[in-house]
Amino acid sequence: MDAPSAERRLNDLLAGGSTITFATAESCTGGGVAARVTSVAGSSDYFLGGVVAYANDAKANVLGVPRDVLDTRGAVSPECAQAMAERARDLFGATLAVSTTGIAGPGGATARKPVGLVYLALAGPDGTRVEEHHFSGDRAAVTDAAVERALALLVEGAEAALRPR
Amino acid sequence: MDAPSAERRLNDLLAGGSTITFATAESCTGGGVAARVTSVAGSSDYFLGGVVAYANDAKANVLGVPRDVLDTRGAVSPECAQAMAERARDLFGATLAVSTTGIAGPGGATARKPVGLVYLALAGPDGTRVEEHHFSGDRAAVTDAAVERALALLVEGAEAALRPR
Repeated sequence: MDAPSAERRLNDLLAGGSTITFATAESCTGGGVAARVTSVAGSSDYFLGGVVAYANDAKANVLGVPRDVLDTRGAVSPECAQAMAERARDLFGATLAVSTTGIAGPGGATARKPVGLVYLALAGPDGTRVEEHHFSGDRAAVTDAAVERALALLVEGAEAALRPR
Repeated sequence: MDAPSAERRLNDLLAGGSTITFATAESCTGGGVAARVTSVAGSSDYFLGGVVAYANDAKANVLGVPRDVLDTRGAVSPECAQAMAERARDLFGATLAVSTTGIAGPGGATARKPVGLVYLALAGPDGTRVEEHHFSGDRAAVTDAAVERALALLVEGAEAALRPR
């Protein structure tokens, strides 16, 4: 039997009794993380919502990523991923928030930021964790890999938040 | 040959030279409209971003849908769809914005609001148009139909915005 999908695992962990909620802040995945989460009935128990911040102005004006981060580090940077996740967590009042920002391609790459470079961040009650990935393949493959990793981060975050302290 | 997809048609209309932009405000489609739009390379030319406002608090606090609308008409109402689209248009500073709010099922239905009931709105420079649909099928079918109709509304809006006056 196949392992359950990450969105199903989130549902198993969080639907019904838990008070743990999450939100998303997506750039390169373009809404794909939220779409996977909400494909499962009952996701409204724990998914509050998300921002798809595709343009830099949306990252600054809607999410509240500091302009300074965008100007000096760029939208595809660990600092931007961290700010996106932390701002989404605040904005939605969620326990956890995950963010994605990267170069899905085929355009947009630079010498220092190649196609497939994706930063993800998970913000939670114990702080924020940022990851750098280099995914291979075309636009769809990079996006799918980033969505999958974002969902896995949410599963890890949910499991940690559910653990007795 | 198949007709081009709506997201490809949007790219054909808006990528490159045009100054027309759009944003999304999604409830029942959960990010699926944004994900379809951003699956096309070059969509950053015209797609600014979106809000997935799944919880009522997200509709009010992040998008700015008036509490009064949510309390008296409900989240699944023409008034809510209209406010979502208009608020997203303002928030992102876009030419056009499309919204979706409905009952994807299997839960959440009431006697007056059955599974498959979806309101969509398109806000643009000439005002806002709201539609009521009754889509059939399961959660995935209702969501897919709503995504498809939202994309078609954006195509119509883009064509109208490009027409000489």
